[in-house]
Amino acid sequence: MQAMTVVPGRPDTAATSWLPEPGADDGDVLVEGLAVGICATDREIVRGGHGSPPPGQRNLVLGHESLGRVLSAPDGDIAVGDLVVGIVRRPDDCSCCRAGNWDFCRTGNYLERGIEGAHGYGSERWRAPAEYLVRVAPDLADTGVLLEPTSVVAKAWEQIDHIRGRSGHDGRTALITGAGPIGLLAALLAVQRGYETHVYDRVEGGTKPDLVRALGGTYHCGEASDLPVRPDAVVEATGAASLLADLVNLVAPNAVICLTGISTGTRAVLPGDELNNRLVLRNGVVLGSVNAARRHYEQAGAALAAADQDWLHRLLNRRVPLANWPAALDRRTDDVKVVVDLT
Amino acid sequence: MQAMTVVPGRPDTAATSWLPEPGADDGDVLVEGLAVGICATDREIVRGGHGSPPPGQRNLVLGHESLGRVLSAPDGDIAVGDLVVGIVRRPDDCSCCRAGNWDFCRTGNYLERGIEGAHGYGSERWRAPAEYLVRVAPDLADTGVLLEPTSVVAKAWEQIDHIRGRSGHDGRTALITGAGPIGLLAALLAVQRGYETHVYDRVEGGTKPDLVRALGGTYHCGEASDLPVRPDAVVEATGAASLLADLVNLVAPNAVICLTGISTGTRAVLPGDELNNRLVLRNGVVLGSVNAARRHYEQAGAALAAADQDWLHRLLNRRVPLANWPAALDRRTDDVKVVVDLT
Repeated sequence: MQAMTVVPGRPDTAATSWLPEPGADDGDVLVEGLAVGICATDREIVRGGHGSPPPGQRNLVLGHESLGRVLSAPDGDIAVGDLVVGIVRRPDDCSCCRAGNWDFCRTGNYLERGIEGAHGYGSERWRAPAEYLVRVAPDLADTGVLLEPTSVVAKAWEQIDHIRGRSGHDGRTALITGAGPIGLLAALLAVQRGYETHVYDRVEGGTKPDLVRALGGTYHCGEASDLPVRPDAVVEATGAASLLADLVNLVAPNAVICLTGISTGTRAVLPGDELNNRLVLRNGVVLGSVNAARRHYEQAGAALAAADQDWLHRLLNRRVPLANWPAALDRRTDDVKVVVDLT
Repeated sequence: MQAMTVVPGRPDTAATSWLPEPGADDGDVLVEGLAVGICATDREIVRGGHGSPPPGQRNLVLGHESLGRVLSAPDGDIAVGDLVVGIVRRPDDCSCCRAGNWDFCRTGNYLERGIEGAHGYGSERWRAPAEYLVRVAPDLADTGVLLEPTSVVAKAWEQIDHIRGRSGHDGRTALITGAGPIGLLAALLAVQRGYETHVYDRVEGGTKPDLVRALGGTYHCGEASDLPVRPDAVVEATGAASLLADLVNLVAPNAVICLTGISTGTRAVLPGDELNNRLVLRNGVVLGSVNAARRHYEQAGAALAAADQDWLHRLLNRRVPLANWPAALDRRTDDVKVVVDLT
């Protein structure tokens, strides 16, 4: 079968390769790969800056934002024909992971399919244990490939909701920084929670402002420090660490700022006294959030099912066939979520 | 009557002044002032960098860490002879304050006795409404003056407990940075919560290491980046903003770092990319915490009542009479909590 492969640690080795069919030790459910979404982590692996192959192998099959259809499965919750998404993290045998909190694993000894030590979902067929598959509502169809990035956002919002519970306040202004897929999905979940939702991005034109307005949100450009909003909750989805100084000054008292992006090589410098004192005197919170547990995939499924399907389809603006998949790594103006078509 | 006064905004105006007896509009409970604790906020007001007098007045009566005995009171929960502590913040007429969450006030239009716009408790007699008094167990006696700083620490720990609930983990290593009164009281509450407790400070000798060891904790000096601990919870009580970079690297995954100190003029610079990425990839949380609601004063009372009274007495290492109170502002080696004796 064909698969999207890369040699981790070696730049520019992205290729379409012929590999043997997936082995039974990958799991007892056999899935036909339908699509895989491409994100910044994939680009970082292709650049040679991240990722590792399964032990003893040279290639890594890329792809952790999956969508597939079940070809065969043992008796259980998952049936032939079901649309499914594979969970990315393969827990370590530690108490946190066994309790299902693998997104908060303390050992760090987990694997991540398509990223660290385990093949991803970018192949014509793949296997997984039933317990690491999440069923997707049949009417989501193509947009089910957004489930994994939405799970990351669902975890971010779950934590914001939890932490905001400490103060007894219900201020309902949200700011999302970055209008990429994570930012736009974070905005979707903010609107679903009843927030007055603002999205900030550098890009002035194109589809992003339209996508935000279609949600009922307000789109902002310009200097972050000048934004005419005083948010109670922020999801930071650009990874530009320098934004944190502006955000801490901008937010309302008791606000929660959730960082979801990775900052690479910006060498941002933050003013420590100001950051410290604003956080203390205004009861501010900054948290980082990564990965997702099963319940976040399920929350993501509910959020996508409740969303306008046309809006979700507009996020999937470019499809690239498997044979030519490295073209999906290019970043074109107005790209939101580029998907590799595995069929 | 005599009172500890200062002219806010004018350095070095600390004095003992004769003032009229407190007026009935201060509240219907009349209290004999017993003691007032001195903290960094008081020093900052005396330095001219903080604070404001009541409207139309020039002097501010200092003192927000109070202890007194009731001289007269209307029928109710508070009775003549009770030991009491006055709550610092006088809420604004906003929904957050009316709900008792004045420590999370969103308007910022509150007053603070002894700090902002209202006289403090540093006088031979003072008045307060019964609803802003907290009764102190009679056997606490002198150590009741620690109730207010302990309330700040109780709020910090309440939030750490709440936020840590998100991950389902119960790692029990705590680090407290700074072995001043706030740090030592934070260590007391950490030990009471069952944490393996570590305290870090610059000072190598003197009473601080002994006080930490007497709690069952471990005392550390040297470089913060070299500390041989991997804490799940941190209470930062030095106000040295530069420590945050070390702490984010030091902590265990999913850790919560609570900032309680104000950083003045250190011009600390923090590495943004590293801070951002450590927080994201390890689900880290940094929060600031300030002030306290009534329930935190009550939690503080319970914590002090459960503590070793000899240990608490050792924190109160120096008493200065009211007539000579500016001497309490000096910082001597081995000072922990300096108290002005109002009797």
